[in-house]
Amino acid sequence: MDVGFIGIGRMGTAMARNLLKAGHRVRAWDISPSARDRIRNDGAEVASSAADAFRGDAVISMLPNDDAMRETFLDSDILAKAGASIHLNMATASIDCTKELADAHRARGVSYVAATVYGRPEMAAERNLNILAAGDPAAIERVQPLFDAMGRKTWRLGDVPTNSSVAKIAGNLMVACIIEAMGEAAALARAYKMSPADVLNAVVGSIFDVPVYRIYAGLISSGKFEPPGFDLRLGLKDAKLALAAGEEVNVPLPFASVLRDNYLDALAHGDGHKDWSAITRVAARRAALE
Amino acid sequence: MDVGFIGIGRMGTAMARNLLKAGHRVRAWDISPSARDRIRNDGAEVASSAADAFRGDAVISMLPNDDAMRETFLDSDILAKAGASIHLNMATASIDCTKELADAHRARGVSYVAATVYGRPEMAAERNLNILAAGDPAAIERVQPLFDAMGRKTWRLGDVPTNSSVAKIAGNLMVACIIEAMGEAAALARAYKMSPADVLNAVVGSIFDVPVYRIYAGLISSGKFEPPGFDLRLGLKDAKLALAAGEEVNVPLPFASVLRDNYLDALAHGDGHKDWSAITRVAARRAALE
Amino acid sequence: MDVGFIGIGRMGTAMARNLLKAGHRVRAWDISPSARDRIRNDGAEVASSAADAFRGDAVISMLPNDDAMRETFLDSDILAKAGASIHLNMATASIDCTKELADAHRARGVSYVAATVYGRPEMAAERNLNILAAGDPAAIERVQPLFDAMGRKTWRLGDVPTNSSVAKIAGNLMVACIIEAMGEAAALARAYKMSPADVLNAVVGSIFDVPVYRIYAGLISSGKFEPPGFDLRLGLKDAKLALAAGEEVNVPLPFASVLRDNYLDALAHGDGHKDWSAITRVAARRAALE
Amino acid sequence: MDVGFIGIGRMGTAMARNLLKAGHRVRAWDISPSARDRIRNDGAEVASSAADAFRGDAVISMLPNDDAMRETFLDSDILAKAGASIHLNMATASIDCTKELADAHRARGVSYVAATVYGRPEMAAERNLNILAAGDPAAIERVQPLFDAMGRKTWRLGDVPTNSSVAKIAGNLMVACIIEAMGEAAALARAYKMSPADVLNAVVGSIFDVPVYRIYAGLISSGKFEPPGFDLRLGLKDAKLALAAGEEVNVPLPFASVLRDNYLDALAHGDGHKDWSAITRVAARRAALE
Repeated sequence: MDVGFIGIGRMGTAMARNLLKAGHRVRAWDISPSARDRIRNDGAEVASSAADAFRGDAVISMLPNDDAMRETFLDSDILAKAGASIHLNMATASIDCTKELADAHRARGVSYVAATVYGRPEMAAERNLNILAAGDPAAIERVQPLFDAMGRKTWRLGDVPTNSSVAKIAGNLMVACIIEAMGEAAALARAYKMSPADVLNAVVGSIFDVPVYRIYAGLISSGKFEPPGFDLRLGLKDAKLALAAGEEVNVPLPFASVLRDNYLDALAHGDGHKDWSAITRVAARRAALE
Repeated sequence: MDVGFIGIGRMGTAMARNLLKAGHRVRAWDISPSARDRIRNDGAEVASSAADAFRGDAVISMLPNDDAMRETFLDSDILAKAGASIHLNMATASIDCTKELADAHRARGVSYVAATVYGRPEMAAERNLNILAAGDPAAIERVQPLFDAMGRKTWRLGDVPTNSSVAKIAGNLMVACIIEAMGEAAALARAYKMSPADVLNAVVGSIFDVPVYRIYAGLISSGKFEPPGFDLRLGLKDAKLALAAGEEVNVPLPFASVLRDNYLDALAHGDGHKDWSAITRVAARRAALE
Repeated sequence: MDVGFIGIGRMGTAMARNLLKAGHRVRAWDISPSARDRIRNDGAEVASSAADAFRGDAVISMLPNDDAMRETFLDSDILAKAGASIHLNMATASIDCTKELADAHRARGVSYVAATVYGRPEMAAERNLNILAAGDPAAIERVQPLFDAMGRKTWRLGDVPTNSSVAKIAGNLMVACIIEAMGEAAALARAYKMSPADVLNAVVGSIFDVPVYRIYAGLISSGKFEPPGFDLRLGLKDAKLALAAGEEVNVPLPFASVLRDNYLDALAHGDGHKDWSAITRVAARRAALE
Repeated sequence: MDVGFIGIGRMGTAMARNLLKAGHRVRAWDISPSARDRIRNDGAEVASSAADAFRGDAVISMLPNDDAMRETFLDSDILAKAGASIHLNMATASIDCTKELADAHRARGVSYVAATVYGRPEMAAERNLNILAAGDPAAIERVQPLFDAMGRKTWRLGDVPTNSSVAKIAGNLMVACIIEAMGEAAALARAYKMSPADVLNAVVGSIFDVPVYRIYAGLISSGKFEPPGFDLRLGLKDAKLALAAGEEVNVPLPFASVLRDNYLDALAHGDGHKDWSAITRVAARRAALE
């Protein structure tokens, strides 16, 4: 297929490479010249602008936040010239932003699929993403080969694009919660003069033996929160996305509220640019263990 | 080996059977006559009292709560007559009770190993327990064949018996936290008119693909909380064990505090004898989704 | 003095009347024609627009929310034509909005004083407001006669306008907290088959014998939350102002987080347009007392 | 009247003195010889034991905690020899302990009134206590002159003695909550470079102008938490009494849960023997302001 790709940071680059490997044609755009050079070397065509990338069978976007998405797709005339391309937005947007994007596409007659993903850049590189797709089922059906080229599984979540955001936000909340839970467990262990590694390894090895647990148990046990795999400030952003999603529909989220307070505590103590699992230092610090 | 076994409820029976299968001699005791008859049919000798069971190479106890443990081992002269048996307490006791038991055994010169387990009765039947052993390393080494007959893995957590309780309490807290987190995620999904099953299956299938998650995702999605696999009142008891453990060493546990409040909410609404995952009805009810 | 007055809702009207009574000249503006008619009958001159009201010795504004303030003062050229008037903004704005307003006034050379108030319309009518003034001390000194005409006391909080917002937000948070605390106390009382009135009256009469406590103890005891004195949706707005103020400077506010979740619970149960003390129904409902 | 008095610490001594001043005969007992000497100098008769003090028209007890009350009244035969005296227990007991005491008195036919008080020793000295009386109305009527000699007002809370405990616990919870709320407000103020005194004085002076607020606003503003007026460890004890009272009847108390966590944080940081308002250092520390 003929694919536009807007936003080729670490995730986007890994995804675009897999599209190229699978034989798709990719026309990429990023504001960073070095990102453009990199993807050109990988065999992609480089577009002259986001609008220039927005054509072909499908356009994938992977922009960093709501502001960048609004600027690119809402504050421009890009959708007016979009033609018949299906837009697959694979970044995580807030519920509000997703609604605005869906409305704007509908108004312009452009097919819009929200397709958030679970996975880090190394998983993207290994074609190991989980894709949460929501939008027009016929459009999803048509782009399934693209999803297959990038991910290990596509979860179809209905035809309302916000469904993809809700699922992504809910999943991120669940990951954040297990990190906090491990942090409280680790603080308890340390206060009893035990090695957090012993306790977390036993629990994780016994009942939670999956990568996400092993990774964070390792980080928490070692206390090595730099360099960040996922920035703590982004953790706060995600907690706020969850709280805002809840607010929209009157759902209290007490765990998310605790997380938010703890991220602020972490920021106040200078851990904003560490890995988000540095939130576990809060539990330790409150027990005077740091 | 020659093994006494005190407390043969559902867990104890499954464990004792595996000892018998592995060729060990078992002399069992339980206050329930039907439990005694059952284990006799399985090939065990039946003791005439807890004290009568407390002899041989090792004695395993699996009593339901602190009160039963204190009554059996502290309010009797059972330890005075214990001889050279190693006592393996495989039930979950509070930190306080574990300390009292360890002290009483030490005073009587009886070897004491705390060896809490992860696993439900069906996992015990399948020799699939994870055993968290803490106490005299030489004693643990000697009884390792018994652990091997009952579990898939033994985690050695040092020579202080409370370490086993801390690890078990910490692990239970982590499980309780994921249930609450899934409950908040499910409430969010429902408030957005999505099926909780769709959202939880996507998240769990993507990043948390282990039985404990699949089981609870299923219960929460279906809303089938009866019959209970693990009683909600016991969930509250565990949350209180965690809070008490934290209190002993000045460790605030904000997630455990939220859990405690939510279990009370569930009890007030008549869900005390449902599965502990019925705590997730609290998040739904607060969002007016029930 | 010659005073412009922008925004004459219930609070603004009461305040403007006291200025007139004290012999000041008032030129008022409101988007509502009936509000304008009312104040004309009270002896004020009616301006033809907000900009027309923005002249004289001082201009007082009392607009309902950030949006109205931004629209009136930032999205217009009103400040460019403001001349030498001192602007007294007596409404509660967010920290962010206060900063933007202060910056815009400074850029135009217009003197800006943030002067939030404690008090409801009936207290405004009785000249019984407490005024929290922050901004250029010389300007505050000059308008002190106006404050004296409207309030019982002016608290001077330094020369940074956000100080007034911080103090107002902090005070609102304290009031919201006592309402929640009374709600938890009342739920406890009811669960023990006691009359909440008995318990609250005893506590309030003993140690908290001030109007704010008496009023809310009465509302909570009687369960009469309509008509609202202060709308619950505004309570949520205030809690969010506090949380946002905390977020700006990395201050976790766990009580405010509990309040936010409880307001959402109240909204989900249809109490959004009741008095904000209806948040206390949440504690009662969670204990299955409603 | 002829009054026994058991437990003459700082509170008890002040109360007994007022009984003497009002012309009542007091026969006092305390385990401390110096306390006995002190009250003898004030004109009281000194009993030879708690049992010896337990006679006359009424007996007032003011013991420090549940353990002391159980030991004195339940683990002895004191009630068997009590005769027709009315027992006024003016100390704060847990709900459980109050029930046990009420049951034991009923079984022995001894009239029991729970009469907890609001007030510190200096208020007791000034006859300025508020008394929360619950128990047999006829008995309360008979001892009213004693209450009048000690307090400024008696609140009658029905005939179930636990009502007095519930009201006292609820009131203490409300005071603890305002301290935490002021702590969060003060942290916010400090993070905005404002003086906490300015903010707290403005709020308190405007709407909370009663001694309890003025006292704690002063302590929090000055950061002088020593010597303690009321020990932080006792604050934790009170929060736990509230949580236990809630647990008994399935009432979640989220503010009390936050308080409990924060007291533990304060204990971990060495503030256990400071004034309980040192809990406000937690909010400041979490925002990295200490």
